[in-house]
Amino acid sequence: MDRDWGSRDADFVALSERVRRRLVALAQSEATHAAVPLQGAGTFAVEAAIGTLVPRDGKLLVLVNGAYGRRAAEMAARMGRAVAVLECAEDRAVDPAAVAGALADDPAVTDVLLVHLETTSGLLNPLAPVAAAVAAAGRRLLLDAMSSFGAVPINLRETPCSAVMASANKCLEGVPGLAYVIAEAGHLAAMAGNSPGTSLDLHAQWRGFEANGQWRFTPPTHVLAALDTALDGLDREGGVAARGARYARHCEVLAGGLAALGFRTYLPPDLRGPVILTLRDPGPPFSFEAMYAALHRQGIVLYPGKLTGAPSFRIGCIGAINEDDIRRTLAAIGAFMRQGHQAAAD
Amino acid sequence: MDRDWGSRDADFVALSERVRRRLVALAQSEATHAAVPLQGAGTFAVEAAIGTLVPRDGKLLVLVNGAYGRRAAEMAARMGRAVAVLECAEDRAVDPAAVAGALADDPAVTDVLLVHLETTSGLLNPLAPVAAAVAAAGRRLLLDAMSSFGAVPINLRETPCSAVMASANKCLEGVPGLAYVIAEAGHLAAMAGNSPGTSLDLHAQWRGFEANGQWRFTPPTHVLAALDTALDGLDREGGVAARGARYARHCEVLAGGLAALGFRTYLPPDLRGPVILTLRDPGPPFSFEAMYAALHRQGIVLYPGKLTGAPSFRIGCIGAINEDDIRRTLAAIGAFMRQGHQAAAD
Repeated sequence: MDRDWGSRDADFVALSERVRRRLVALAQSEATHAAVPLQGAGTFAVEAAIGTLVPRDGKLLVLVNGAYGRRAAEMAARMGRAVAVLECAEDRAVDPAAVAGALADDPAVTDVLLVHLETTSGLLNPLAPVAAAVAAAGRRLLLDAMSSFGAVPINLRETPCSAVMASANKCLEGVPGLAYVIAEAGHLAAMAGNSPGTSLDLHAQWRGFEANGQWRFTPPTHVLAALDTALDGLDREGGVAARGARYARHCEVLAGGLAALGFRTYLPPDLRGPVILTLRDPGPPFSFEAMYAALHRQGIVLYPGKLTGAPSFRIGCIGAINEDDIRRTLAAIGAFMRQGHQAAAD
Repeated sequence: MDRDWGSRDADFVALSERVRRRLVALAQSEATHAAVPLQGAGTFAVEAAIGTLVPRDGKLLVLVNGAYGRRAAEMAARMGRAVAVLECAEDRAVDPAAVAGALADDPAVTDVLLVHLETTSGLLNPLAPVAAAVAAAGRRLLLDAMSSFGAVPINLRETPCSAVMASANKCLEGVPGLAYVIAEAGHLAAMAGNSPGTSLDLHAQWRGFEANGQWRFTPPTHVLAALDTALDGLDREGGVAARGARYARHCEVLAGGLAALGFRTYLPPDLRGPVILTLRDPGPPFSFEAMYAALHRQGIVLYPGKLTGAPSFRIGCIGAINEDDIRRTLAAIGAFMRQGHQAAAD
């Protein structure tokens, strides 16, 4: 993060190529897919994938059980793509049989978008059977893997996916400012001119990399260098499975400790991904804002903001943290709850 | 750059607000404009400004004397906006009288886009008279100030501009990964739903900041923090005029030294901005690639890549460098030229 790179220099070109190779390798997709990094937030990559990969005369079916699915459907409609939505409750997983039925009922659908791990609730949707249903119906699958990539195995040799969208700053533990799409190269190559805009045109961005290894527009050089280093960290940890196991342990310790303090999880254990845990808000005298502030004073920064329809709050399990950090957080929450109850009793 | 910020945390909200205030203050536009930071490259901000601020039934006149003007016209056409182009040679400044004439001839034009400093050649276009011509014709001016903002004074109290687009990583000397649009607030407020996309919707991005101080989508936290620190550096240097004077001195020393080595500048001195100097390529035995490599070995990284129609190369004058760096570069170029000529003579 402290080195300035010349963004057109051979050293930076080599860095970009290395990161692109590492990303396709992480998805076991070297033979079929190309990694296209994109400046900006993860949402930019989702919009870029929809705009570039869903044909202008195509139709996108979005599988919705949370805010990120809803946002994808809104983005697709905003850019003029035909959109259908198959929605289920936020505490239910996407149902592969329902997907198969929706595809049978609507032959106009060309592409399906699944949010792998809905950050809204922390729910992990069943990728393999959904991908199988989409492939069986002869459609393409766009996978929003923003919150899963790097912690939940995604093997594109076994799981048919047209594109995987993710970012540098979640389970890969890089810093924010860069996203990417791992796109099936044959389809990507056919989509010249399909994007409604320039900046988020994945085809043109990919052609730029293929032509001379350079980014079309000024890249976030420091953020890319940090991602390369973060990928070293993933390798050192033992890869995606090891990282996913660490996060799952965080999630389990957190859920157990919070249950002992009287909190109820929003999702049953079998639907929970290892990334973020949603707890039901027990209501007054409990106040998430007060707990947030109390923990913040101790240097523990939770993720504020609720997205589920139900009253709830969330605690993240990912990042360069360990089980001791989780236990320290639980201890701080325990102390807050005792003080809070005492204050309420006074 | 070494601190992780919680992107929804009050500390980061305060940082974002501070940077937004500093940016409008730099353009003397606190009373009239709002700064809207945007994740990504500077080009993203130009596309966002066109897509959000030029009405769907409007028409954009792009004043072109280099690659960045051409790109803006292409981006506007790609997103379906009506576009006209007023082009002049790359070694000529945009002519305010020609702008007035073009606007008189085409009443459909609602907005005009000027590239303040064309990085293609380093040419500084005459902002004040162009802005006056646009205002006199009752149209809005979008100013691509990517390569001038922070080094060439821009005073929106005196110069009518609907929007100024720039980035963190040129004359402000921050790191890349973040751009911004300083937009007239009344017009921005009227442009809800005008953007063809979501990620680059400046109106929605602005509403997000105004609602709760937060970025709509994950911000490049480290890059924003670096920009805040870079703005401290600009203040310490004495502001825009002092920084512009330092760069102008670099440009002057560079032009003089290169003239002594036999190089000819692409532009006459009165058209040159203080940011980047374009030299005519003298042809064989000179090779820019060989010179680039020779300097690179000494830790001096030039900016490769030519954009002008004429054979040329460029040397930047901006960044956290001083006159000694420029003189060291000149000495290295001098040594290369002597060796090169010797090699050619051998």
